[in-house]
Amino acid sequence: MKFSVGLEYALHCLLYMVDLPEGYSVGVRELAHYQGVSETYLAKFFTKLRKAGIVKAAPGVNGGYELALAPQDITFWHVVEAIEGKTPLFQCDEIRQRELLLDQDNLPDAYTKCPCLIHTVMNEAEDRMRQYLNEKTLAWLHGQTMTKIPQDHRKAMQDWFIKE
Amino acid sequence: MKFSVGLEYALHCLLYMVDLPEGYSVGVRELAHYQGVSETYLAKFFTKLRKAGIVKAAPGVNGGYELALAPQDITFWHVVEAIEGKTPLFQCDEIRQRELLLDQDNLPDAYTKCPCLIHTVMNEAEDRMRQYLNEKTLAWLHGQTMTKIPQDHRKAMQDWFIKE
Ligand code: FES
Ligand code: FES
Repeated sequence: MKFSVGLEYALHCLLYMVDLPEGYSVGVRELAHYQGVSETYLAKFFTKLRKAGIVKAAPGVNGGYELALAPQDITFWHVVEAIEGKTPLFQCDEIRQRELLLDQDNLPDAYTKCPCLIHTVMNEAEDRMRQYLNEKTLAWLHGQTMTKIPQDHRKAMQDWFIKE
Repeated sequence: MKFSVGLEYALHCLLYMVDLPEGYSVGVRELAHYQGVSETYLAKFFTKLRKAGIVKAAPGVNGGYELALAPQDITFWHVVEAIEGKTPLFQCDEIRQRELLLDQDNLPDAYTKCPCLIHTVMNEAEDRMRQYLNEKTLAWLHGQTMTKIPQDHRKAMQDWFIKE
């Protein structure tokens, strides 16, 4: 079980977008060029981010994307769901219903219909991860990153995106 | 990103094994038959559980498997790692090192060598899930399940495995 590499690109792209001055949209082509990755590759993830309501197509002839929500309203979990999909990590196939002796014993619903505890535990484990990722917003990520990034590098990066 | 169906089978198999009277080993063939699944399919997961030190080959001509640890020492997380592997959920490819302007700016190590915060957040999210799953042992699962399972069904199941 692994997260896809697309998630890493999606999160980094969104971080660049948060750092651009308000009102600037950015093209997938520029984001791809800046990160040394192919535009087609990145475009797939932007389609997912758009469908999830995290980015939106910018108006105007130049196109590109802008954030569809404020950075404090976009969490890591939103991005994970957008890229990886919404199905739970653990897919219970109700394998216990195929137990050999199940029909023969006339079992009460309390045993066969209640949620399987293995399933419940796995779902709760995912909840822990979800809760944590839902606390981490893009605004927080941006704030933290800005304390580390040298100001001239940040300026150079912004200028590059704005010029492109 | 998904857990494999093998994980569901592995956890259910281990639960059957915990419920057998001490000293009984169980064959993959019986576990497969009982659950209505192919033996070859299940055998793959038992190889993984054995490599992870969760089960061991039972001595004697009849073979089969028995638990290699006490049920209170086997956690859900052990089983997840055995079946899904030990690599972290989120694989950071250090994509930030390929940023276009990175060389040109002579950036300090504090920026380029410190762990990427996106990576850190994703690892901590997995930690939350791991912590939770490490608290849940097979002994606990067994205890909880035994309060729900009708006693005659449990007895019939044990008898079936012991007879086989
Ligand atoms: S039946 Fe699916 S986890 Fe138990
Ligand atoms: S470089 Fe891998 S998550 Fe940032």
